[in-house]
Amino acid sequence: MLNNMRRMHVHHDQLEVRTHGKGLYEVSDQIESTIDKCGIQNGTVTVFVQHTSCSIVIMENADPTARRDLEEFFDRVVPEDADYFTHDAEGSDDMPSHIRMVLTRTSETVPIADGKMQLGTWQGIFLFEHRRAPHRRKVFVSLIGE
Amino acid sequence: MLNNMRRMHVHHDQLEVRTHGKGLYEVSDQIESTIDKCGIQNGTVTVFVQHTSCSIVIMENADPTARRDLEEFFDRVVPEDADYFTHDAEGSDDMPSHIRMVLTRTSETVPIADGKMQLGTWQGIFLFEHRRAPHRRKVFVSLIGE
Amino acid sequence: MLNNMRRMHVHHDQLEVRTHGKGLYEVSDQIESTIDKCGIQNGTVTVFVQHTSCSIVIMENADPTARRDLEEFFDRVVPEDADYFTHDAEGSDDMPSHIRMVLTRTSETVPIADGKMQLGTWQGIFLFEHRRAPHRRKVFVSLIGE
Repeated sequence: MLNNMRRMHVHHDQLEVRTHGKGLYEVSDQIESTIDKCGIQNGTVTVFVQHTSCSIVIMENADPTARRDLEEFFDRVVPEDADYFTHDAEGSDDMPSHIRMVLTRTSETVPIADGKMQLGTWQGIFLFEHRRAPHRRKVFVSLIGE
Repeated sequence: MLNNMRRMHVHHDQLEVRTHGKGLYEVSDQIESTIDKCGIQNGTVTVFVQHTSCSIVIMENADPTARRDLEEFFDRVVPEDADYFTHDAEGSDDMPSHIRMVLTRTSETVPIADGKMQLGTWQGIFLFEHRRAPHRRKVFVSLIGE
Repeated sequence: MLNNMRRMHVHHDQLEVRTHGKGLYEVSDQIESTIDKCGIQNGTVTVFVQHTSCSIVIMENADPTARRDLEEFFDRVVPEDADYFTHDAEGSDDMPSHIRMVLTRTSETVPIADGKMQLGTWQGIFLFEHRRAPHRRKVFVSLIGE
């Protein structure tokens, strides 16, 4: 069994993240649980969000003011009321959600060593929701390692 | 043969993307073909562009207005005529191309399951060209899986 | 021995990068050395920075004016004196450092073929320091390949 676990292999998992409006939702614990379950000790985990109106970011996870300021920054740099947006079928937060996604990330790849993600002390993995309405977001997790 | 294909391995491929000015060029089908050819069923694919004046992004691939608005956003946030640019040996789109590349991505890593990229319904992989002149862009594709 | 090296495996390494103020610090040679040492010929390398106030970017590595213009761009788009920042316990470069990190990258994944990173002619891997004070930055390097 142990032998089998230490062979290089791929393990996939899918998470659902329920969001209720714009903001950062931490998923670090869910990713860590997936790693625990699959038994990979050394390798990488790729966290991939299957949408174009939310993103994945690594961010300071201790002080909530850092997250609030980040959201305020995006509201100013990618405002909902930009007069040149033509892609607005789903409302004023439609086009800004795509731009915010492009400016951040669709995936993050994090090293795993000794069975743990090698995040720094203040790093958390967050789903960054860019829409105002509640959503169920699908996150695909790919682990490769031994 | 089948046995051999299901062993963990690495497969590389190189694509050339011909661009004719700024904008988004979808490469999803070419990546999917590479996956089909190499036989990897489960793993990841890393799409890496070997240039500093174009990028890789995942973007909404259904409605072209979303892509036009995105390009307009970048024209406004990283304008060609910023008076503080000194790196302009190749013209006014030289420095903005590097900044746009840094604000987006050089690579994307996408999970592969059951022989298919796990893109969401509206996700496409695009080469984002930041130069006005036509270019032949080299994209290196790395697949790891079993 | 050779047989062993060509088996798929994971290799980890940790680098320390000493920074002395905001700016780009190239780490390409250190990553290349790690690849040489571990003997992986084909695969990928993930370069992951374990902090939330600096980033990893791939950038033009020939002309220093490109890097100076990039830094100037970030000073203008994410200024230290934005009046809405509340997260400033560590000074006026505290919150901007998190935003610049989110706008760039925490990791880069680069293909390795024939024992070499497949960077384009003008691509370098840089640690992008966003703080003014000197720091010792930890970079975790994950190689997967055969």
